[in-house]
Amino acid sequence: MAGSDTVIGYKTYVDLAKPLLTGQEVVSSRMTQELDRAAQALDLALSGRRVALVSGGDPGVYAMAAVVYELVKKRNIALGAGKDRLQVEVVPGVPAVTASAALLGAPLSHDFCCISLSDRLTPWEIIADRLTHAAQADFVIALYNPKSRGRDWQYPEALALVGAHRKPETPVGIVSRAMREGQRISLLRLHEAAEAQVDMQTLVIIGNSQTFIFGDRMITPRGYLAKYDK
Amino acid sequence: MAGSDTVIGYKTYVDLAKPLLTGQEVVSSRMTQELDRAAQALDLALSGRRVALVSGGDPGVYAMAAVVYELVKKRNIALGAGKDRLQVEVVPGVPAVTASAALLGAPLSHDFCCISLSDRLTPWEIIADRLTHAAQADFVIALYNPKSRGRDWQYPEALALVGAHRKPETPVGIVSRAMREGQRISLLRLHEAAEAQVDMQTLVIIGNSQTFIFGDRMITPRGYLAKYDK
Repeated sequence: MAGSDTVIGYKTYVDLAKPLLTGQEVVSSRMTQELDRAAQALDLALSGRRVALVSGGDPGVYAMAAVVYELVKKRNIALGAGKDRLQVEVVPGVPAVTASAALLGAPLSHDFCCISLSDRLTPWEIIADRLTHAAQADFVIALYNPKSRGRDWQYPEALALVGAHRKPETPVGIVSRAMREGQRISLLRLHEAAEAQVDMQTLVIIGNSQTFIFGDRMITPRGYLAKYDK
Repeated sequence: MAGSDTVIGYKTYVDLAKPLLTGQEVVSSRMTQELDRAAQALDLALSGRRVALVSGGDPGVYAMAAVVYELVKKRNIALGAGKDRLQVEVVPGVPAVTASAALLGAPLSHDFCCISLSDRLTPWEIIADRLTHAAQADFVIALYNPKSRGRDWQYPEALALVGAHRKPETPVGIVSRAMREGQRISLLRLHEAAEAQVDMQTLVIIGNSQTFIFGDRMITPRGYLAKYDK
């Protein structure tokens, strides 16, 4: 951001970035305008400006990096340095899934997967299939976008699909607004997790068959003690 | 680290942290001594010191956070503030999987999973089952720890298991030492990925059925263009 002329992003993220700005032009937009935002960032960059498109978490995880590249490909813009070319750099960040995990304890210490429950761009059949495979293979499962206004049945349905292959007392960690104002953390069991308040700013982590709760922490063992300490 | 008295970790990570230190005591150890290192960190903390145990990437992803908590539970140490209690905080970081993804383009923009190929602590049957389920469910698949000295058949075997459910031309991004000295990036197709040089510092990302290569970037579309732009 320090080296950019223009900072562009969803209003919430631009506001979070403001303390770091040093006079850059700021363009903020509404949540649902991902394509417009990416197109605007591209247009500004092609006009010669250095543009920082900001996301929350890591821009490569369900965020804007791919939207930019999809547009670059559609317009067939050559990447790289030089005239009529575009230099694109993705700066990684701390994704919501590991920020939430850190607050919960250490739930991601074995194989895990991330699944978005938003069926706005992905048919529910594909999402449901992924949930079932992930549950059968005993992955720790992180759910992104569990619920939104007007989309409320996918979250309990996802828990039911996973519950068909995992014990009711499996630990479930739920973190909203990790490391931001309004942060909320709760630790439940799978059979009661459907009752939790969740929204688009919530990350839900369902433990695997080995995950346990100790004190107020959720831990998925790596297995050292089981192996070396019998 | 700034608020700690002692910094402890695997030598490579402690060396990376050195420029940030301001007089802390430093304890470094060998790679394979995870349990000893965690025990030493716990002992120092229980003796009253403020201890920073450093990992590469994110300490919650195949790293030291869970090892510490497993020991805390085994010794039945009460967590929290106060006498004979221990305060444990996990500070999240940029995990190798998203650092590598950023260098490759945007391969993680849809549902993905992380699978470690190390069968030192996990039976190969479980790892193989996860690979097959992940491939069937069309997850983007990130492989941690693909190969080590004395462990060389798991990586080609993993590619073969995924290849049974995914096209030979599926993009595979391979990043070693992401954002560190000696960084190496290559972009191949699934049918040729077994030939790549990989080791314990390498992250391998296998695309899903929609992942494409554009220029020198690997991109998994989120689907906006497909939905809104027909």
